[in-house]
Amino acid sequence: MKILLIGASGIIGRAVAAELAPRHELITAGRSSGDLRLDLADPASIRAAYAEAGSLDAVVCAAGNVTFKPLVEMTAADYEVGLRDKLMGQVNLVLMGQKHVADDGSFTLTGGVLDHDPIAEGTSASMVNGALNAFVLSAAIELERGLRVNVVSPGVITEALDAYAPYFRGFEPVPAARAALAYAKSVEGKRTGQVFRVA
Amino acid sequence: MKILLIGASGIIGRAVAAELAPRHELITAGRSSGDLRLDLADPASIRAAYAEAGSLDAVVCAAGNVTFKPLVEMTAADYEVGLRDKLMGQVNLVLMGQKHVADDGSFTLTGGVLDHDPIAEGTSASMVNGALNAFVLSAAIELERGLRVNVVSPGVITEALDAYAPYFRGFEPVPAARAALAYAKSVEGKRTGQVFRVA
Repeated sequence: MKILLIGASGIIGRAVAAELAPRHELITAGRSSGDLRLDLADPASIRAAYAEAGSLDAVVCAAGNVTFKPLVEMTAADYEVGLRDKLMGQVNLVLMGQKHVADDGSFTLTGGVLDHDPIAEGTSASMVNGALNAFVLSAAIELERGLRVNVVSPGVITEALDAYAPYFRGFEPVPAARAALAYAKSVEGKRTGQVFRVA
Repeated sequence: MKILLIGASGIIGRAVAAELAPRHELITAGRSSGDLRLDLADPASIRAAYAEAGSLDAVVCAAGNVTFKPLVEMTAADYEVGLRDKLMGQVNLVLMGQKHVADDGSFTLTGGVLDHDPIAEGTSASMVNGALNAFVLSAAIELERGLRVNVVSPGVITEALDAYAPYFRGFEPVPAARAALAYAKSVEGKRTGQVFRVA
């Protein structure tokens, strides 16, 4: 398959690339590296990347920003970051990608464990991940030509613990290579409308 | 208790008012009727309504708009309606309300059955309802002074079937008075971080 991988330089993205590259042709995309420039928060850059990529069999997104901050300090502008980037960026990948992905192709998005297991300072992440879970459930029943859409909801990634451990005390970390299997299951399997939890 | 009820003139709002009024003092709010003017999509109107209402024991929201449209026709602007109104409108009620609601007071928001049981044309509603469910789960662990937050997720309301029946074939309708009980449970009970499903 010819697969567009967004966020290919990140911790999860690199593991997904390692998992998929032996069997597929990858086009990597990112804000500042990869074959194509793509910023989730900028719909024009998504449109341009699709135009450059040509026909695809699958789109995998392993990117998305949200703001972590105590609830009492959160403002509408803080939530806006996550809504613009991780949520609508990935939704726009599906909306705009419908005409670029071949019959029976797939979209695989990234959510996260905070969808059901919240932490302090994580209300925006929880909101966005919950929105993504429900979006794929619903979009899956409307996509045409056999197109599929799933979201991978990984736990905190082992390789990211240097940065995130204080926020995720008690969470069992997930090696990026294990999370990457869920992306392969979504791309190479036949299921749709699923939240693939990797805990 | 002194309770601010937003969307008091709607089908659910009227049933919630009927359920709560015998035991509590209600201040009703809406875009075009009620004691106070409040438009969920306009943060300034939320701030003004809180200032006018004075100290409160509970906030109940039975309002919120989203766009229903086939996925293939949905644009980012269509999702924006739901993100601005039903999602961030209710989130802003919590953010701004933290300093107006008394110790051990509560926020009760409205989601809906499409959070887990999707229909055609309902991707925005599903997204917003899923976001609200995860938000209250997460916000509940950070609210201070015993403040609580829940979301009621009702099925399609019997009294609204004239307008919505074609979208909800096969869904068992819920009388508004039954849905209203979940709001009373949230306001008068002690639970927090809950999705109260009324199916």
